[in-house]
Amino acid sequence: MDGQDAARPGDERFFTRKGPFTLAALAECAGARIENARDDADPRQYTGIAPLQSAGPQEVSFLDNRRYAPLLEQTRAGVVILAPAFVDRLPAGTVGLVCSAPYLAWARIAALFHPVPAIVPGIHPSAVIGEGAQIDPSAQIDPFVSIGAQVRVGAGSRVDAHAVIGDGVRIGAGCRIGAQCSVSHALLGDRVTLLPGARIGQEGFGFAVGPDGFETVPQLGRVILEDGVEVGANATIDRGSSQDTVIGAGSRLDNLVQIGHNVRLGRCCIVVSQAGISGSTELGDFVTVAAQAGLIGHIRIGTRARIGAQCGVMSDVEAGADVIGSPAMPFREFFRNVAVLRRLAKKGTKQGDGAA
Amino acid sequence: MDGQDAARPGDERFFTRKGPFTLAALAECAGARIENARDDADPRQYTGIAPLQSAGPQEVSFLDNRRYAPLLEQTRAGVVILAPAFVDRLPAGTVGLVCSAPYLAWARIAALFHPVPAIVPGIHPSAVIGEGAQIDPSAQIDPFVSIGAQVRVGAGSRVDAHAVIGDGVRIGAGCRIGAQCSVSHALLGDRVTLLPGARIGQEGFGFAVGPDGFETVPQLGRVILEDGVEVGANATIDRGSSQDTVIGAGSRLDNLVQIGHNVRLGRCCIVVSQAGISGSTELGDFVTVAAQAGLIGHIRIGTRARIGAQCGVMSDVEAGADVIGSPAMPFREFFRNVAVLRRLAKKGTKQGDGAA
Amino acid sequence: MDGQDAARPGDERFFTRKGPFTLAALAECAGARIENARDDADPRQYTGIAPLQSAGPQEVSFLDNRRYAPLLEQTRAGVVILAPAFVDRLPAGTVGLVCSAPYLAWARIAALFHPVPAIVPGIHPSAVIGEGAQIDPSAQIDPFVSIGAQVRVGAGSRVDAHAVIGDGVRIGAGCRIGAQCSVSHALLGDRVTLLPGARIGQEGFGFAVGPDGFETVPQLGRVILEDGVEVGANATIDRGSSQDTVIGAGSRLDNLVQIGHNVRLGRCCIVVSQAGISGSTELGDFVTVAAQAGLIGHIRIGTRARIGAQCGVMSDVEAGADVIGSPAMPFREFFRNVAVLRRLAKKGTKQGDGAA
Repeated sequence: MDGQDAARPGDERFFTRKGPFTLAALAECAGARIENARDDADPRQYTGIAPLQSAGPQEVSFLDNRRYAPLLEQTRAGVVILAPAFVDRLPAGTVGLVCSAPYLAWARIAALFHPVPAIVPGIHPSAVIGEGAQIDPSAQIDPFVSIGAQVRVGAGSRVDAHAVIGDGVRIGAGCRIGAQCSVSHALLGDRVTLLPGARIGQEGFGFAVGPDGFETVPQLGRVILEDGVEVGANATIDRGSSQDTVIGAGSRLDNLVQIGHNVRLGRCCIVVSQAGISGSTELGDFVTVAAQAGLIGHIRIGTRARIGAQCGVMSDVEAGADVIGSPAMPFREFFRNVAVLRRLAKKGTKQGDGAA
Repeated sequence: MDGQDAARPGDERFFTRKGPFTLAALAECAGARIENARDDADPRQYTGIAPLQSAGPQEVSFLDNRRYAPLLEQTRAGVVILAPAFVDRLPAGTVGLVCSAPYLAWARIAALFHPVPAIVPGIHPSAVIGEGAQIDPSAQIDPFVSIGAQVRVGAGSRVDAHAVIGDGVRIGAGCRIGAQCSVSHALLGDRVTLLPGARIGQEGFGFAVGPDGFETVPQLGRVILEDGVEVGANATIDRGSSQDTVIGAGSRLDNLVQIGHNVRLGRCCIVVSQAGISGSTELGDFVTVAAQAGLIGHIRIGTRARIGAQCGVMSDVEAGADVIGSPAMPFREFFRNVAVLRRLAKKGTKQGDGAA
Repeated sequence: MDGQDAARPGDERFFTRKGPFTLAALAECAGARIENARDDADPRQYTGIAPLQSAGPQEVSFLDNRRYAPLLEQTRAGVVILAPAFVDRLPAGTVGLVCSAPYLAWARIAALFHPVPAIVPGIHPSAVIGEGAQIDPSAQIDPFVSIGAQVRVGAGSRVDAHAVIGDGVRIGAGCRIGAQCSVSHALLGDRVTLLPGARIGQEGFGFAVGPDGFETVPQLGRVILEDGVEVGANATIDRGSSQDTVIGAGSRLDNLVQIGHNVRLGRCCIVVSQAGISGSTELGDFVTVAAQAGLIGHIRIGTRARIGAQCGVMSDVEAGADVIGSPAMPFREFFRNVAVLRRLAKKGTKQGDGAA
């Protein structure tokens, strides 16, 4: 396949590219101090970023995970962003950009070389715009977008191809609505990002048992996505039934996550892919829900709690707790149980009375 | 964010609003008797619905969950729908609408104040309609809908923006096909609802091992969605391989549910979000499958069985059984196992031979 | 509902139909030898396929699963494809097509009667095609497709309605991009199939903790789908962060599967519905990941390993291993643990000190 061998970050067919940049510019962007440089006025220009194992003398790399430290000693990278603990292991010809949060510094250096493409303001002629909609002139509306009546789209926001925005929806400034998303009954703050296929604001799973089968309970709440929220591809967030469904500022939801009606997340929560949160459950700030975990409805999860992968949470979780397992229990207890059961099973097998 | 503080159900930017209604009209709609009214000919008009904690004297609320009973005693709501057991706890100024199924009554009252918007018949000029397609004149076809050849859409049905309906598909009367749905190789009864992004009728996961890798097995069945079926956002229902995949009348599937080829659900089944049912498995009537449960293929689940959240079902389940765990076992056995293991682990730890 | 009773494979409203075919032609297509025929020059023509229980004298059926063997003895099918072990159970009037891989033979016979419809070359006038895009004249581009700048679409490929193809994407020959798919930052080989709603190439879940909340880490890799890859409906494959995300040739991913950034799958892997693979994990060739399994990031799964349904894999898995459970353990150990715990719980209950 053409181009597959060019496996470096930043393929120019897909990404913008800026630079080159001087060491001083890189250090300033990273908020890092320079170590191991030949002199303070290094005239070299650096042209891009690459992993430790493939970076060359004009490229910048980084080390964040201790398991990759052996690669550092053999790298040919011109510059490596790293924590103070690894400075001693820098090769002779490699400059260190030393800082306490190398992954964050890396994020900023990567965005320096490969910034997000600028918005191209304007409304594609194929888009359908409803009556009374107010689209900021600096926003970008792509082909086949369908925008309902009275919608507002803020400054510098971008609505990608084929997105469907329902009547009355508010989209703040600096948002990006991905391709094929649907958004209805929702108020979005500023800098909200929806990845392709996210479903925001459809009615939740609500019905009552009637004489002839189930009857739908009207879902009359909304979805509130506060500033800086990000929602993954094909994730689903149902609108509230009578209260709102609220995702707190800065929270990030991964692909295929499900959020039920009336759920409330605090600030800076993380919900990893394929996890699900059932109706009316509330999370405090900085809660982490790992992949494929499931939370039943009507419970509360305290601030900074961490829910492990595939965990099944059936009751409240205290602030700061680490739980895993189904049903959920403290991490320590879970792994102790695993060990005890393994030991018992081995003993049982030896005694000849183990397996069925 | 504008409007976030207006956290009452029925935001007029998103929902229709009818009323006001008299107490008598409400009682009739709810099928309830009136308690605690000042007199039988109460002339007051009620204007809307609200939760117990925020409802005012002109609003209607309800109590369905015992845990919220304390809120009843302090409510300022004009009217509360509730079960006979809670009548004694009504505040002096609050009228009770007493009935045996308050949640059902609430559903109907909520729909009285906020009915589903009426269909606007007609085909948007941007829609593409295939040869021989028959769209009932009372149906609504939204922007960018793509309808294949020989499709039929029944009276009063609505196809939302960007839906793609494949050749030959039948859609009955009173259906709603959500934004961005795709439907192919499928026959839909009346009053079928698909939420945005649902995928109906694509080929199932079928292949044979050939000399040069996998070879696709043609998937030659259909999807049958009987009357009143509802399918959640981004859920997927594969068409049959040689038989049909059938979802029985009145069944409700939540977001991100997966239904494999040849699966058959009986009437009024419930499948909660992120659950998955593998190929050729059959469910009786009134089966409940909770969130994130998984059923392997080629098994049978009896009528009114209940499959717990995250349950892993590897064999047949009897009618009326309650199972949970992975592998699935009776509820009682599962929680007994959890307790026994916890006790053994604690004992082992005390003896100093517990965890690894 | 009209047509529901016509529950035979190959409903002509949805599928093409070829034939009839002679027994000799069927045997050649299946690579099978003929058993139980009246004579070698059987003049009969066979018109279609059907399951054992409904096939008639002019139809072809097959037996692959031992559990359906009793149906063989009562079938009225004219021809049955089957393994040598079942030849003795053929009814008197039924011809056997005997081969070592009956399911594969069935796939080919089914495709003989019901071939995939031919491509209709051309670009629908509603499609939007970006600057510099090169669409092979033999490709089919359906209504409302949006194709970015510099995209290439190879010979005989088909892009279904409403698909969105981002700038610079390469699509090889003989591909099928399903309705409503989005593809960006990706290189697709030949004969790649994406089912409706698949999301390919969006940014992965990558962020660093900054002073004011999370900061996005630029995702600068691509997605590589090698020849013959198939991706299920509403599945999501994130592009790499600095390396690429790679799905090896011939691999098949089912509906609602999640693949994180930098994941690498070898050749002919199978990932069943709702399974998820976290970032930077690598699978060898011929690995099977069953439904709803989850793999954490940064681990390696050896060639031909099999990961069971709902398995939670937290560490490397050796080539050829069979694991299940959460955390993952060998199949044998898992079921031994289940049996031991059940026995202990029963004993505990008898002694009156069991459940909480």
